[in-house]
Amino acid sequence: MQLYDFKMAPNARRVRVFVAEKGLAIPSVEVDLGSRAQLNEDYRRINPMAEVPALVLDDGTIITESTAICRYLEEVYPDPPLCGRNPLERAQVMMWDRRVEQHGFAAVAEGFRNSSPFFKDRSVTGAADFAQIPELAERGKARFANFLALMEQRLGESEHVAGERYSIADITAMVTIDFARTIRAKIGEDQPNLQRWYAAVSGRPSAQV
Amino acid sequence: MQLYDFKMAPNARRVRVFVAEKGLAIPSVEVDLGSRAQLNEDYRRINPMAEVPALVLDDGTIITESTAICRYLEEVYPDPPLCGRNPLERAQVMMWDRRVEQHGFAAVAEGFRNSSPFFKDRSVTGAADFAQIPELAERGKARFANFLALMEQRLGESEHVAGERYSIADITAMVTIDFARTIRAKIGEDQPNLQRWYAAVSGRPSAQV
Repeated sequence: MQLYDFKMAPNARRVRVFVAEKGLAIPSVEVDLGSRAQLNEDYRRINPMAEVPALVLDDGTIITESTAICRYLEEVYPDPPLCGRNPLERAQVMMWDRRVEQHGFAAVAEGFRNSSPFFKDRSVTGAADFAQIPELAERGKARFANFLALMEQRLGESEHVAGERYSIADITAMVTIDFARTIRAKIGEDQPNLQRWYAAVSGRPSAQV
Repeated sequence: MQLYDFKMAPNARRVRVFVAEKGLAIPSVEVDLGSRAQLNEDYRRINPMAEVPALVLDDGTIITESTAICRYLEEVYPDPPLCGRNPLERAQVMMWDRRVEQHGFAAVAEGFRNSSPFFKDRSVTGAADFAQIPELAERGKARFANFLALMEQRLGESEHVAGERYSIADITAMVTIDFARTIRAKIGEDQPNLQRWYAAVSGRPSAQV
């Protein structure tokens, strides 16, 4: 297998943390998004959507979309389980992973891509150019504040995001919190449950990738 | 089981089509989004995110997020398979389902929720109010046109969205195309592969839900 990766891309980090938690070592190739290498012909033959990450299997099959890559690795390398141990747990993990994506990760992405000078005319991932929308940057920041409040409540009820066990939903949430540095947002001092959880998940060796 | 549903909500329709393809009959309760019933205390006890659909299991467990509901039903009622028959197929189905969501469904939602008078101050699903952003409505329409072009190319290579077999990715794509009526967008007359595929998938009995 070979992973097309980029150190600073948060979706790529989701996969790297997942791989580290599985105890796997997958050779990777850096696609330099800083110089827009994802838009080159060569990379678009691997992923026509011009996004990282992408996983190329030994038979040449390509899997893109970080969640699809993680679910594939979960099936092929089931231990330790990171997506739930039975149908009901898997549903709860997927539910929370989606909530984090839709209400947290997407909010930060809106905030960052619509405000950073680097993303001028690149407000959406992928091959096509779209102008930044300043109001969308503001909306993203406001939505992210709501997301932190949701997580603070959730982590007051539950050790981890999707229940008592560490899962892919914790990975997505941790990556989202770290990604929020790009919009100068962080966990509040009045959010002790989030602080407790963040210290635990970011203290795991997998968080260093 | 009981499904909290709303006839006109496209994410709820994804689940209804999936249930029909499985040959299941799940009793449902209509949550009238037209009168904002999803924001009531009663419904928010079921789904704090104030979104439909939600599936309540016989033991009281609640699963929200349409994709999580469908994956749960796939595990409990594996025939006919709609999410792939082995790890590699499942990865490809999930990859295409995500591409359709991110580049198609999300684009229509941006276009509709930021332009329709009904969604004034409700530009994002969920409990919180956010003002509409007219530029985002325009961006959504432009992104949806790119999505149709992507699908036309894909369906020139492949019978269905994720490969040779009908899958959840076809359900998401069909629901997305129908949802696009809300932004007055549709498959072009110069898109024969999409026309062929749409006639096939929308001719299935499951499409009538």
